[in-house]
Amino acid sequence: MPYINIRLAGTLTNEQKQQIAAEVTDTMERIAHKPKSYVYITFDEKPHEDWAIGGKLLGNNK
Amino acid sequence: MPYINIRLAGTLTNEQKQQIAAEVTDTMERIAHKPKSYVYITFDEKPHEDWAIGGKLLGNNK
Amino acid sequence: MPYINIRLAGTLTNEQKQQIAAEVTDTMERIAHKPKSYVYITFDEKPHEDWAIGGKLLGNNK
Amino acid sequence: MPYINIRLAGTLTNEQKQQIAAEVTDTMERIAHKPKSYVYITFDEKPHEDWAIGGKLLGNNK
Amino acid sequence: MPYINIRLAGTLTNEQKQQIAAEVTDTMERIAHKPKSYVYITFDEKPHEDWAIGGKLLGNNK
Amino acid sequence: MPYINIRLAGTLTNEQKQQIAAEVTDTMERIAHKPKSYVYITFDEKPHEDWAIGGKLLGNNK
Repeated sequence: MPYINIRLAGTLTNEQKQQIAAEVTDTMERIAHKPKSYVYITFDEKPHEDWAIGGKLLGNNK
Repeated sequence: MPYINIRLAGTLTNEQKQQIAAEVTDTMERIAHKPKSYVYITFDEKPHEDWAIGGKLLGNNK
Repeated sequence: MPYINIRLAGTLTNEQKQQIAAEVTDTMERIAHKPKSYVYITFDEKPHEDWAIGGKLLGNNK
Repeated sequence: MPYINIRLAGTLTNEQKQQIAAEVTDTMERIAHKPKSYVYITFDEKPHEDWAIGGKLLGNNK
Repeated sequence: MPYINIRLAGTLTNEQKQQIAAEVTDTMERIAHKPKSYVYITFDEKPHEDWAIGGKLLGNNK
Repeated sequence: MPYINIRLAGTLTNEQKQQIAAEVTDTMERIAHKPKSYVYITFDEKPHEDWAIGGKLLGNNK
């Protein structure tokens, strides 16, 4: 632990994911004093039509 | 907030997702007094073979 | 299934939870055609200091 | 990885959690060929009034 | 309930998922005394590039 | 969106949570180009006896 799940609408490149993972892991080590090797991070890239804000799908174009 | 995650086996049309998002957001505003614009809803449509009830996959036909 | 998780900052009364559960379950039956008895709903009531929006804890008063 | 989250209504003793963790980890190693040391399991013990089935809270006595 | 979510990087065959679901459901019945028919299990098979350990994506080859 | 959930065993101070939220939100804005005000972060502080690694509860002293 810790286990961190990052959910967002749309996609990220592998480079973006790698940099986010590196920075968030560094934050957890520096602030929460967790050993880096124990930090799990997962990304859930959701289609825009699977995410609603304020009752409206982000990707509903119909 | 709130953040609401809806997981189900199978798929929904965008029209179904839109109506569910609208109704659930309305429920959260009316009953829990949360401003609509803060309500996030995500849908996770899972293949039937990724969901088990009673120890049996819903989509295991083998 | 479906499995629906409702996370929010703060608390709800049992009456609010009961009404939300009834309405969301009804929505899932009516729109997604899922039998009511299969709908699981869980509530995660989080302390305000465990929820951040825009980089600020909702309950950080220090 | 893997990361396994077990949510239930009510409570378990530490002995029950320990035995579940041991058995589920063994299953993941034996069937999915994942090294034991990488298997994270978390338990979420929910109050009965935070879980609804069929639109009714399990712990709503009012 | 209970609701159990199993997340891992990579894929499993339907046979592996079926056996894991059967064993984990049996564990929950035997140790936690939950009726089998109430046990929901879902699998989230994640691409290796969506999982980071120690700040490095498992599937980042670039 | 995005919605980020940080789960760990043990507790953090409000100052630690505030700093983690600020840094992770900054990372999401800078790398993923998400507006800060849309970033939700939640913390789940779990008791050590609710987290197992390698089939052993972190907090099982019995």
